[in-house]
Amino acid sequence: MTNPSLLILPGDGIGPEVMAEVRKIIDWFGANRDLSFDVSEGLVGGASYDAHGTPLTDETMELAQSVDAVLLGAVGGPKYDELDFSVKPERGLLRLRKEMDLYSNLRPAQCFDALADFSSLKKDVVAGLDIMIVRELTSGIYFGEPRGIIEEGNERVGINTQRYTESEIDRVARSAFELAMRRGKKLCSMEKANVMESGILWREVVTEVAKDYPEVELSHMYADAGAMQLCRWPKQFDVIVTDNLFGDLLSDAAAMLTGSLGMLPSASLGAPMANGRPKALYEPVHGSAPDIAGEGKANPIACILSFSMALRYSFDQGAEADRLEAAVERVLADGVRTADLLGEEGVTPVSTSGMGDAVIAAL
Amino acid sequence: MTNPSLLILPGDGIGPEVMAEVRKIIDWFGANRDLSFDVSEGLVGGASYDAHGTPLTDETMELAQSVDAVLLGAVGGPKYDELDFSVKPERGLLRLRKEMDLYSNLRPAQCFDALADFSSLKKDVVAGLDIMIVRELTSGIYFGEPRGIIEEGNERVGINTQRYTESEIDRVARSAFELAMRRGKKLCSMEKANVMESGILWREVVTEVAKDYPEVELSHMYADAGAMQLCRWPKQFDVIVTDNLFGDLLSDAAAMLTGSLGMLPSASLGAPMANGRPKALYEPVHGSAPDIAGEGKANPIACILSFSMALRYSFDQGAEADRLEAAVERVLADGVRTADLLGEEGVTPVSTSGMGDAVIAAL
Ligand SMILES: CC(C)[C@H](C(=O)O)[C@@H](O)C(=O)O
Ligand SMILES: CC(C)[C@H](C(=O)O)[C@@H](O)C(=O)O
Repeated sequence: MTNPSLLILPGDGIGPEVMAEVRKIIDWFGANRDLSFDVSEGLVGGASYDAHGTPLTDETMELAQSVDAVLLGAVGGPKYDELDFSVKPERGLLRLRKEMDLYSNLRPAQCFDALADFSSLKKDVVAGLDIMIVRELTSGIYFGEPRGIIEEGNERVGINTQRYTESEIDRVARSAFELAMRRGKKLCSMEKANVMESGILWREVVTEVAKDYPEVELSHMYADAGAMQLCRWPKQFDVIVTDNLFGDLLSDAAAMLTGSLGMLPSASLGAPMANGRPKALYEPVHGSAPDIAGEGKANPIACILSFSMALRYSFDQGAEADRLEAAVERVLADGVRTADLLGEEGVTPVSTSGMGDAVIAAL
Repeated sequence: MTNPSLLILPGDGIGPEVMAEVRKIIDWFGANRDLSFDVSEGLVGGASYDAHGTPLTDETMELAQSVDAVLLGAVGGPKYDELDFSVKPERGLLRLRKEMDLYSNLRPAQCFDALADFSSLKKDVVAGLDIMIVRELTSGIYFGEPRGIIEEGNERVGINTQRYTESEIDRVARSAFELAMRRGKKLCSMEKANVMESGILWREVVTEVAKDYPEVELSHMYADAGAMQLCRWPKQFDVIVTDNLFGDLLSDAAAMLTGSLGMLPSASLGAPMANGRPKALYEPVHGSAPDIAGEGKANPIACILSFSMALRYSFDQGAEADRLEAAVERVLADGVRTADLLGEEGVTPVSTSGMGDAVIAAL
C-alpha cells in the first residue's frame, strides 16, 4: 500500500517557521507510529510570487489537486501591499480554495483551559468555550462577478458581487448540520436577510435543509446581532453557519475572543474524491504575522493542530489525532509557553522550535 | 423666529416606550430652558406597515425631508419576518437613510464608568473606552444594483452588489477626518482590499483624502483583523471609518463590548441644508428588542442621548447637550438602573419611565 500524500505549503511570514515544527511531528509519526506520508513541499503567496511572479503556479495547483491533503502555513505581508491585485499573495490561497472547491471551512473557536486568562473577555464568559464556525468558502462576494474598478462618468467605481446559488447554500448547510449532529445538535445560521436578498435565499435554503435533520435545533440571527452575541455570551452557540464574508469577520472575532488565537487550526473541506476522502486543506487560523516572522516567537501549535485535524478528517487516524492533541494539552499544562502566551508566573518560555520539541517529548 | 422642527418616529418594539421618555425631556427643555421645538410624530417600520401597508409613507418621507432633524426609535420584529422584502420594517429606515442621503453614520462605542462591570470584557480592557465608528450609510451592498433572487438554470440565485464610487468614499472619509481632527487625530480605515476591488478603491481614496489632513495619523486594517483588534484591545482606536456592511457588524460588536449598549446613541448626517444644518437622523444603537417591548424594562438613555446628539449637531446647542449628558451621568452615578443594568449591590432599579423621571429630576 502506498503512503497517503501530503502537500506542504509554508507560505509567508511565520508560515515557514511553524511548518518546520509540523515537519518534525510528521517525522515522529513516521518513525514511531508506522504512519508515514509522502510529503511534498511547494510555494504559495508572496514566497511563490518572489520565485515565480505568481502567488501559485499551475504546477503547484495540480499537485494540490492530486494529493490527499494540503497543509498551509499563512500568506501575505506588507512587502506585497503594492502588488497588483491579481498577483497578491492572497490570490494564491483563494485559487486553492476555489479550484479545489473547498466549500466548507471549519473554524473552531475553543478556549484552552490553561489559557483562559489570555482572553480579553472575563474568565467566566470564555472558560470552556467550544464552538465551531462553518464558513462558506468558495462563493459569495469573494468570487462573484462582475467585479473590478471601472470608469463611470468621470470617476471610478469599485464593484464586487455577492452571489449564492441554492446548491451552494445547500451543501455548506448540510456540512454544518452533519457537524451539529456530532456535537451539541444546535445550529445558528447568520446572514442579513433583513437587508440582502442573498440573505433571504440563504435563510430559506438552510430552513429547507433542516427538514433532513429534525434532531438539530436551528435558529437564525442577523449577522450584526451575531457579532454582538459572540462578544456578549459566546457559549450560547454550538455550531454557526454563515457565508464567506461574514464568516471571515465572525470567525476571526470569535477566535480572538478565546484568547487562544495561536492555538486554533482550521479545515477547509470539499466533496469526496475517488478514494472517498474529502478534498482538504488545513491551515492555522492566525495569519502570517510579519511583525514577528523569523524571530522564533511564533506559536506552532495552531499549525500542529491543523495537522491533527488532517489526521482526523483526511486520514481516518482519529486515535493518532487524539494522541497528538493530548500531547499538546500536556505541554500547556506543564506551563510551556511561546512568546504570545507569556505573562503568567511560573511558566517556561520557549521558542517556536522549543515548543515543537516539547510536543515531541510529550508524544 | 420660528422654532426648530423635529420629526419623531418611534417605530417598533421598545421604540415607542423609550421615545415617550425623550418627549418628556423635550418638554422639559421647552418649559425650563426656553428651547422649544416644533415636534411632529410619524410612523415607520412595522408600525407604519400595520397602519398603511408600507414601512414608510410618502407623506412621512416628505416630512422627514422638510424638518431640521429626525429622531427615530427602532424598527423591526419577528411579527414582520414573513413579510415580503419590499415592505419589511427595515425598508422604511433604509429609505430614510437613502433619500435623505445620510452618508455619514457616527456610532460612538463608549464605556460609561459606572457600567464597566457590565462588559463581557475585562475591566482594564474596556474602562474609559471612547471610540467613534464612522460608517458609510447610503451605498455599498445595502443599495447596489443588480440585486434580487433570480432563476438561473434550474435553481435560484441570490444576488447583491457592493458598489462604491470615488465621491461616495471621499465624502464619508472627509467626515471621518473632520471628526478625528476634533478628537485624538487618529483614524483607522477598514476594508478587505486583499480580497475585494471595492476595498482597493476605498483604500486609495481614503489615502488621497488624508493629504488634506496632515495632522491625522491614518492607518489601514483589513476588516477581519479589525474585528479581532476591537475584541482584543479596543483602546488602540480613536476614529474608525468603514463601509456600510462592515460598519454594521463592527459597530455592533464594539457597542456590545462596552457593556453600555442601552446607553449608546448614533447620528446619521448628510450634506448641509439651505439653513446650514446637516440633514440628520438620530437613533439609539440598540434595536427594537421585541422580547422586552411593552414591559417597562427598556433603557431610554440611548434614545435620550440621541436627542442630546441632535442638540449638538443639528441645533448648535452644545451647552444644553452638555447639561443633558451631565444629568444622565449623575443619574447613573446615583445608582439608578433600568433592568438591563441590574446585578450590582445597592442600586435602585427603575422602569423605563422611572429612568426618564430621574433624568428630569437631575436636570
Ligand atoms: C488571507 C485572506 C484572503 C483570508 C480571507 O479573507 O479569507 C483570511 O483572512 C482568512 O480568513 O483565511
Ligand atoms: C435595522 C437594520 C436595517 C440596520 C442595518 O442593518 O443597518 C441596523 O442593523 C443598524 O445597524 O442600524
